[in-house]
Amino acid sequence: MARPTNVGIHAMDVYFPTTYVSQTDLEEFDGVSAGKYTIGLGQENMAVCGEREDINSVCLTAMENLLEKYGIGYDQIGRLEVGTETIVDKSKAVKTTLMSRFNEHGLFDVEGIDSKNACYGGTAAVLNSLAWVESSSYDGRYAMVVCGDIAVYEPGPARPTGGAGVFAMLIGPDAPLVVEPGVRGTHMEDVYDFYKPTMVSEYPRVDGHLSNACYLRALDGCYNRYADRYEKAVGEPFSLSSADYSVFHAPYNKLVQKSFGRYLWNDWLRNPTAHPELDAGFQEYAAISADESYTDRAFLKHLVNISKERYGQMVQPTELITKQCGNSYCGSTYAGLLSLISEKQDELDGKRVLLFSYGSGLAATQFSIKVADGAGVKEIAEKADVHARLADRTKITPEEFTAVLAHREESYTKFDYSPSRPVSDVAKGTYYLTEIDALERRHYARALHTSAAPLLAAAQNTAAGTAPRMVHRQGVRALPRFTSLMAPAVRLARRVFHR
Amino acid sequence: MARPTNVGIHAMDVYFPTTYVSQTDLEEFDGVSAGKYTIGLGQENMAVCGEREDINSVCLTAMENLLEKYGIGYDQIGRLEVGTETIVDKSKAVKTTLMSRFNEHGLFDVEGIDSKNACYGGTAAVLNSLAWVESSSYDGRYAMVVCGDIAVYEPGPARPTGGAGVFAMLIGPDAPLVVEPGVRGTHMEDVYDFYKPTMVSEYPRVDGHLSNACYLRALDGCYNRYADRYEKAVGEPFSLSSADYSVFHAPYNKLVQKSFGRYLWNDWLRNPTAHPELDAGFQEYAAISADESYTDRAFLKHLVNISKERYGQMVQPTELITKQCGNSYCGSTYAGLLSLISEKQDELDGKRVLLFSYGSGLAATQFSIKVADGAGVKEIAEKADVHARLADRTKITPEEFTAVLAHREESYTKFDYSPSRPVSDVAKGTYYLTEIDALERRHYARALHTSAAPLLAAAQNTAAGTAPRMVHRQGVRALPRFTSLMAPAVRLARRVFHR
Repeated sequence: MARPTNVGIHAMDVYFPTTYVSQTDLEEFDGVSAGKYTIGLGQENMAVCGEREDINSVCLTAMENLLEKYGIGYDQIGRLEVGTETIVDKSKAVKTTLMSRFNEHGLFDVEGIDSKNACYGGTAAVLNSLAWVESSSYDGRYAMVVCGDIAVYEPGPARPTGGAGVFAMLIGPDAPLVVEPGVRGTHMEDVYDFYKPTMVSEYPRVDGHLSNACYLRALDGCYNRYADRYEKAVGEPFSLSSADYSVFHAPYNKLVQKSFGRYLWNDWLRNPTAHPELDAGFQEYAAISADESYTDRAFLKHLVNISKERYGQMVQPTELITKQCGNSYCGSTYAGLLSLISEKQDELDGKRVLLFSYGSGLAATQFSIKVADGAGVKEIAEKADVHARLADRTKITPEEFTAVLAHREESYTKFDYSPSRPVSDVAKGTYYLTEIDALERRHYARALHTSAAPLLAAAQNTAAGTAPRMVHRQGVRALPRFTSLMAPAVRLARRVFHR
Repeated sequence: MARPTNVGIHAMDVYFPTTYVSQTDLEEFDGVSAGKYTIGLGQENMAVCGEREDINSVCLTAMENLLEKYGIGYDQIGRLEVGTETIVDKSKAVKTTLMSRFNEHGLFDVEGIDSKNACYGGTAAVLNSLAWVESSSYDGRYAMVVCGDIAVYEPGPARPTGGAGVFAMLIGPDAPLVVEPGVRGTHMEDVYDFYKPTMVSEYPRVDGHLSNACYLRALDGCYNRYADRYEKAVGEPFSLSSADYSVFHAPYNKLVQKSFGRYLWNDWLRNPTAHPELDAGFQEYAAISADESYTDRAFLKHLVNISKERYGQMVQPTELITKQCGNSYCGSTYAGLLSLISEKQDELDGKRVLLFSYGSGLAATQFSIKVADGAGVKEIAEKADVHARLADRTKITPEEFTAVLAHREESYTKFDYSPSRPVSDVAKGTYYLTEIDALERRHYARALHTSAAPLLAAAQNTAAGTAPRMVHRQGVRALPRFTSLMAPAVRLARRVFHR
């Protein structure tokens, strides 16, 4: 069988929580100078997950919403991989929790598992999925990637760089967003710039200055390897002018602003005539060492200045979600892509998008997407409906935000409890945690807010002895509890309600 | 470019610690009846990692030993993925630690990261690597998989089911061990049979009975899907007779003994004439439900009895390492494969090996290997030299074993310390932990026990500012410390010593 071609992204959606805190409010609350977060970090708002959301619930929500919006059945998914660093279990993958929905439909044959390394897991999942579609194991069903995180930091300067978001994507051949084959560039190193060795805490250890330098070093490595492969594959010189848009992993927007000009610097190092108007300015920095170039203030400022106009064209349209939701770690690069789609839905046909994905530790990859079908992209924008959903969120105060994080801290290793926050707060269609039981197992339900719907919906029997039970109560459908511990007779007798 | 064919395993090696405890000794120590572990669990010895070994060090050792034995350079590896559930950092991947060795050689362009779900991570890594080789991103370099775990349990009945081991494999086209394309079967469910939600402890939560039933249910699902695809692809009926050997994920050997006969039962359910001699016996159980079939003692005994002869031929040669080292979680299935290669090195040409990989939570896949090159397999056996290395280990007492685990418990969340055990205890060629520093960063060295060797070896400068420093002290070479925190001037000036 011939290898499938034009493999890429067919569908895409985001889940972000319905509550957020304003960075302006946070500046005041933290007693820092006005603009420290909004200009210094370049962030506007930060998404905040409530007590009833954990990484499993937000991934369930993202997956289910995508499939519902596109009318795709679980039976059309042949591979599902999760990328996250929000670890609530050192063994059990988030993917297995997502399988609960497939199992309810009698489906079990879905390859893929969790990929883990800081913010790189999403891209690892995407690359693995692309390879699967191109491989002899591809069976015509979609590969699905669910990636994202709940990013929280201890009180202090890193706290406003948190955020939350999960992205779900369908990957297959002949996609509207084709990931260009054979041209990506990867850079990996052993370094402790951001890591989570403290088992009793959800917070990372971060060396911010080191991490910024690592990010730039990885960007140099990836960009040059990407460019080398592009030139070999396409037979033309590569420079930033070869691309139309540029998406970054965005821990906070200011780092993206500082990084973009580096592409032009790399172009100049590769070929001084790539951008003739920049040659004189770069000549002044010809002697700068690689290490100095990551920290020298004058040089970094020069990069920002000379790239401002291009930044407005190529990067600004990619900032919507990351500025409004903050860092979603494994989702961040895909936040940039979906922002671009949301902002430029009518202008993307035939365009090339460069993507840079970075995960501390470190793992980074540069790849590119060629838009093959403008109409398909427009459909993604309409279905994701990002602008309206962002506008529809509820602002909470810095005090409430602080209380939410204090509660996360307290409950991080807690079990044998049910969250106290009322279920009526949970937005329709959102999965939420109902209980962490005495054996530390997590249980979920989905908010429907339509008391009769589940019982009136079509019912079906699933494969004997293997499918979880659906419990109807209080207008929500609960996901399985104690499923496999139930007596066989109970299991054989039960029926599964689903839409 | 045409898709590469006959993709599979080119090289394979195992690392297990040089110390073990005898299950017979443990039976006496624990005051249980003689035979409870040796016959009841079917285990002989259990590998024990010392204080100076963690998941990063054992993976470093496995990777380096494989490359040295085969004379493969780091520049020949284009992809490296790790499968493990021994999590020492919730963000930083083990893969990034392995990158330290590549970085020392100025190499950074290596795709792949960590896959995580209980004992399934190794197989996820293998499947991802196979797909990469078949994909448009394959660049002619090998994919490498490093998978395994340090399996430890709290005191009690599960403790003797621990173990340790890491397997390293090179994957590429035209391999001696070809993974048969397009015929694998996968089964995934959301279930809490074995999981690690307790962040402050290294130990899992386990429901043994549930996990055994899950294992058998997953085996049924995988085997039938495998058989369906085989029949479609090959155009012939599939039964156990289509294979020559059968490798299992082996938490403990008795579960494997109980599971193997299930293949014949599934054959009968698919086609009552598949094994005419078994028809009458199976007819007696024709009414048994799937759930009953996982626990009914008479039925399970029947399966063992009717499969005994086939077991001796097809499974027994796969038991060597798992019986001697215990469970290596993500490595277990590959322990079975390497055992078979070690036991039957002259008889494997043209043979088909069935492999069943299971990870709780749960994720399972059945796939098969066709041996395309008997000489290549013999080389793997000779280089791995498993029999001699197993015989060369040191037995420790149950008291010493208990002390080791007590020490692991105490030090699990500890940092800012250096292990107290003398470095002279570490076997030559083995990486070991030198320190977990005040910032919880882990540092490693490799035991060489040849004081002059490193300094006499060839030296080279590596890519500026990015490669770690090698420190020579006490006859061992230390891996990088504080590398990226060093002043640029220091970094630019340093030289890297390596072989």
